[in-house]
Amino acid sequence: MNYSKIPLAQTVVALCKWHGISNVVISPGSRNAPLTIGFTHDDFFTSYSIVDERCAAFFALGIAQQTKKPVALVCTSGSALLNYYPAISEAFYSNIPLVVLSADRPKHLVDIGDGQTIKQKNVYGEHVHYSANLKLDLRAEANNKITDEIPVLKSIENKLERFLGLQKDIQSYNETELHEALSISEIKSGPVHVNVPFDEPLYERLQEPIIHPKPYKLEEAKGHINEFELKSCADIWQNAKRKMILVGELSPNTVEQQWLTEIANDDSVLVFTETTSNLHHSDFFPGIDKIIAPLNREDFKDLQPDILLTFGGMVVSKKIKAFLREFKPKHHWHISLFNANDTFFCLEKHFKVRPNAFFSQFFSLITHHVKSNYKSRWLTVRSKRRKAHNAYLETIPFSDFSVFNILLKSLPKYSFLQVGNSSAIRYTQLFQLRKDIKVFCNRGTSGIDGSTSTAIGAAVASEDRTTFITGDLSFFYDSNALWNNYIPNSFRIVVINNEGGGIFRILPGHKNTANFNTYFETKHHLTAKQLCAMYGFEYLEAKSNSDLDDCLKSFYTTGNGPKLLEVFTPSKRNDEILLEYFNFIR
Amino acid sequence: MNYSKIPLAQTVVALCKWHGISNVVISPGSRNAPLTIGFTHDDFFTSYSIVDERCAAFFALGIAQQTKKPVALVCTSGSALLNYYPAISEAFYSNIPLVVLSADRPKHLVDIGDGQTIKQKNVYGEHVHYSANLKLDLRAEANNKITDEIPVLKSIENKLERFLGLQKDIQSYNETELHEALSISEIKSGPVHVNVPFDEPLYERLQEPIIHPKPYKLEEAKGHINEFELKSCADIWQNAKRKMILVGELSPNTVEQQWLTEIANDDSVLVFTETTSNLHHSDFFPGIDKIIAPLNREDFKDLQPDILLTFGGMVVSKKIKAFLREFKPKHHWHISLFNANDTFFCLEKHFKVRPNAFFSQFFSLITHHVKSNYKSRWLTVRSKRRKAHNAYLETIPFSDFSVFNILLKSLPKYSFLQVGNSSAIRYTQLFQLRKDIKVFCNRGTSGIDGSTSTAIGAAVASEDRTTFITGDLSFFYDSNALWNNYIPNSFRIVVINNEGGGIFRILPGHKNTANFNTYFETKHHLTAKQLCAMYGFEYLEAKSNSDLDDCLKSFYTTGNGPKLLEVFTPSKRNDEILLEYFNFIR
Repeated sequence: MNYSKIPLAQTVVALCKWHGISNVVISPGSRNAPLTIGFTHDDFFTSYSIVDERCAAFFALGIAQQTKKPVALVCTSGSALLNYYPAISEAFYSNIPLVVLSADRPKHLVDIGDGQTIKQKNVYGEHVHYSANLKLDLRAEANNKITDEIPVLKSIENKLERFLGLQKDIQSYNETELHEALSISEIKSGPVHVNVPFDEPLYERLQEPIIHPKPYKLEEAKGHINEFELKSCADIWQNAKRKMILVGELSPNTVEQQWLTEIANDDSVLVFTETTSNLHHSDFFPGIDKIIAPLNREDFKDLQPDILLTFGGMVVSKKIKAFLREFKPKHHWHISLFNANDTFFCLEKHFKVRPNAFFSQFFSLITHHVKSNYKSRWLTVRSKRRKAHNAYLETIPFSDFSVFNILLKSLPKYSFLQVGNSSAIRYTQLFQLRKDIKVFCNRGTSGIDGSTSTAIGAAVASEDRTTFITGDLSFFYDSNALWNNYIPNSFRIVVINNEGGGIFRILPGHKNTANFNTYFETKHHLTAKQLCAMYGFEYLEAKSNSDLDDCLKSFYTTGNGPKLLEVFTPSKRNDEILLEYFNFIR
Repeated sequence: MNYSKIPLAQTVVALCKWHGISNVVISPGSRNAPLTIGFTHDDFFTSYSIVDERCAAFFALGIAQQTKKPVALVCTSGSALLNYYPAISEAFYSNIPLVVLSADRPKHLVDIGDGQTIKQKNVYGEHVHYSANLKLDLRAEANNKITDEIPVLKSIENKLERFLGLQKDIQSYNETELHEALSISEIKSGPVHVNVPFDEPLYERLQEPIIHPKPYKLEEAKGHINEFELKSCADIWQNAKRKMILVGELSPNTVEQQWLTEIANDDSVLVFTETTSNLHHSDFFPGIDKIIAPLNREDFKDLQPDILLTFGGMVVSKKIKAFLREFKPKHHWHISLFNANDTFFCLEKHFKVRPNAFFSQFFSLITHHVKSNYKSRWLTVRSKRRKAHNAYLETIPFSDFSVFNILLKSLPKYSFLQVGNSSAIRYTQLFQLRKDIKVFCNRGTSGIDGSTSTAIGAAVASEDRTTFITGDLSFFYDSNALWNNYIPNSFRIVVINNEGGGIFRILPGHKNTANFNTYFETKHHLTAKQLCAMYGFEYLEAKSNSDLDDCLKSFYTTGNGPKLLEVFTPSKRNDEILLEYFNFIR
């Protein structure tokens, strides 16, 4: 009894399997029972059960972030699928593939006063790449219930024949829509929505399926570059003395080492790498803000590139965005198989290929490197900044900044680092991370709403040890993330608790008033201790650098469960220390 | 320094004030700082700060449920406003007025790779009654930034004059849009969305406002009944021997006593009242399921009305829906100033007025009551059922059912009861509540996602003592509800903890398998104890009827803070006891 009796449920499950979607995150419900029955009785699928749909969707996002394959989300009808939306928008802007399978009532039971029913059709608007609204399976309806289609049959002589024809059309429509949606999620590496109406009875089962849908797949559009265009770009490139490459968020090992070496050998090229770019070379410039923040207008003119080449996803650094928007390059080219953002209002070309494909073709056209002191001049600045950075860290007391310094050094070798928004990732950006650390952060929408759930999903999928560093607001926001039976023992959370939104102290505004504390910083006195007791995390706490050193001695060793380290930092000192840093390294 | 320097922020705040929107729920952020500054520095507004936007929106919903006036929700850009969506859909289907004021980036900064940015325009689709997308204030832009409008100015001679004209148009557009949105939220008693773009700087302030928007209000469409139509309905009515009135969710004191008496005096009228209808008369039929569940087809034919008159919102009872869909009345008329659901697929008339207005006109046309034994026959059934109900409660052991019996009797006099979805409200429906208890439940979408937050918002607004009864899944789902600085000391929560979704045991399906436990019941061993410690609730627990009696002795007495009582019931026995109940009372 391993198949739902409802043919449409069999179709959805079979086609997910055919498209290789093996991870399924299910939230409890009755309307989705036909799908739950199908997915959980087939060993091909790894099914997860998560109650809070907001967490479920971010958990799925974390899995897909690591596997790069679509993950299915299954929920009941009504407001359930709205709780997915924050993660759907994150997936859309981060190019992470997700497939929402929302169970729905039949059309004739929507908006007539039935419970758990909303207008589910196209509910994610422009934040999904495809929205399929499947049609009700008539065979499940054959006992003369009202449907949209059946009434027309009444006037027709050969009802059965007509009915079977209609059903065949519906089956074919549903299969096509499913193939489109599942293919597009993979090809565009983003979220899609499939709305699946079911009528009662919902719990009936069969031993064998009665539906065997046809395989079909949209072909991935091969990336293609116009050779003539590329040649003219190569000409411009090899004659330009100041070229900047800016790399946004990127999965580890995206770019082949040979291209990195090729780039690093050119003295006219500066490579700024975001912490989330997972790209390393001794000649590159990580810690962008550290370089940019202290510069004046004269320096900016010196730094202004002739050509800006970008690849990767979102850029965290506001400072480099502001700089390049004002000191625009003559040419801005972006490499991405997906979309290209005109982040600096001067985008000239979008090469719709993956970076390796671009570099392979592009560098074959490069015959010489122009003479330039662009890189060497800025390497000198970098070296000065690094010294100043280290010197500053020697002087500062216990604070957010000192804690990040200690934490980032402490990470286990070859481990994964997940970082929360927003202070956490901004602090992390100021440090040069070790090459063996892989870094991830939800920067599609930069929300604080699901970082913990994402980190847990990623830890489950990667099977490598994962440390998640987050601020307190973000952590408490997603506290339901811990209501999860799949958290690996090796998973570690560090909460930097400065009793509110520390980021607001760094922004302009009137600080230290009751109004500021309540509505901006949103001061609180919560700790993660009780949540740890509730959800079976080992709890450690630190209130000083030496506490922290002590805690870190045992923090990464294997325990009986996952562990959480809460570091309490002084909220009123943190912002001064950060702002003073940018003066100090000047 | 009490006003944002940005004129658009002044406009929004001033018009909210003019429309009498005095409650504002703010979630922290930077983009919304201009609004936060404006609202929190004007004593006209009561501002609340809630971090998790999902909870913030349900909290606002609870306030609006009690005050029946629109409540404003203020959030930053990006995924923040998506977290409002579950509450927005609940508000839409429950006719509760909410005004979302979402801060946004200027249009030219959307979809170009900036952080915390999504396509916010019209994001709530058909689940709001109005969606206003305000235009960027150009005065805030005067320093030559790129905007959608400014480039066109470049070719125009008198830039300043043109600019001021354009700005005047924009100001006028924004004022009109705001007036529309705010009026419609009130008139239609539902959610609206106002998207408000702001450019930096966001934190600058002024001592005095520079904007004085013009007042304007859409007139509420007066409900109107066609007298000829009403007369013909009255004729049908007074000659029909079997008339049923079914009352869905309704605010307390909606219908005047004289009309209830008038209705009760007619022997041909049966009045079925949902628990959430807050309507009481000794001749009415509360506890609908208790009446309907044991009936066979012959009984249903006896019960089938000639006329069905409905008013109020959603109907919880599935059993009466199924009955009336199969045994349709000849006429179904619905009374509502708002929409009319064709719940039984036979809706004939929609009287677009409030119930009192309808009854006042309608009863003036009624000259006599037809002879009928319809009511007396069913009053006999009701009396039999009540006896059986009480007899059954004498026999059952400690269980969900016995707990509801004790709890509902224990409620303080003249207090408010908020009930969670889904088992909790279904159990509550089986009891006849005291007249002095006012009952509320989120039945618009019947979600488990925000009942605690709603209950807290309602408790804050009503200022009367409120008890919230909920199941465990619903409670843990909305655990962030307790992260709230405004919870009254008199607030009480009762969690019926049966370690999972007890409702699924009542539905058909294969129980007591690992698969069932994981994906349907979603078994857990959580308790609310640690959350109580975390958020300052006094915690009590009960594991038997006598425990419960003990706890209830002190539960409602004044303490140092709000209290939570967790009742652990035996999950595997609960469903048998409930199902056996329907056999017993037959």
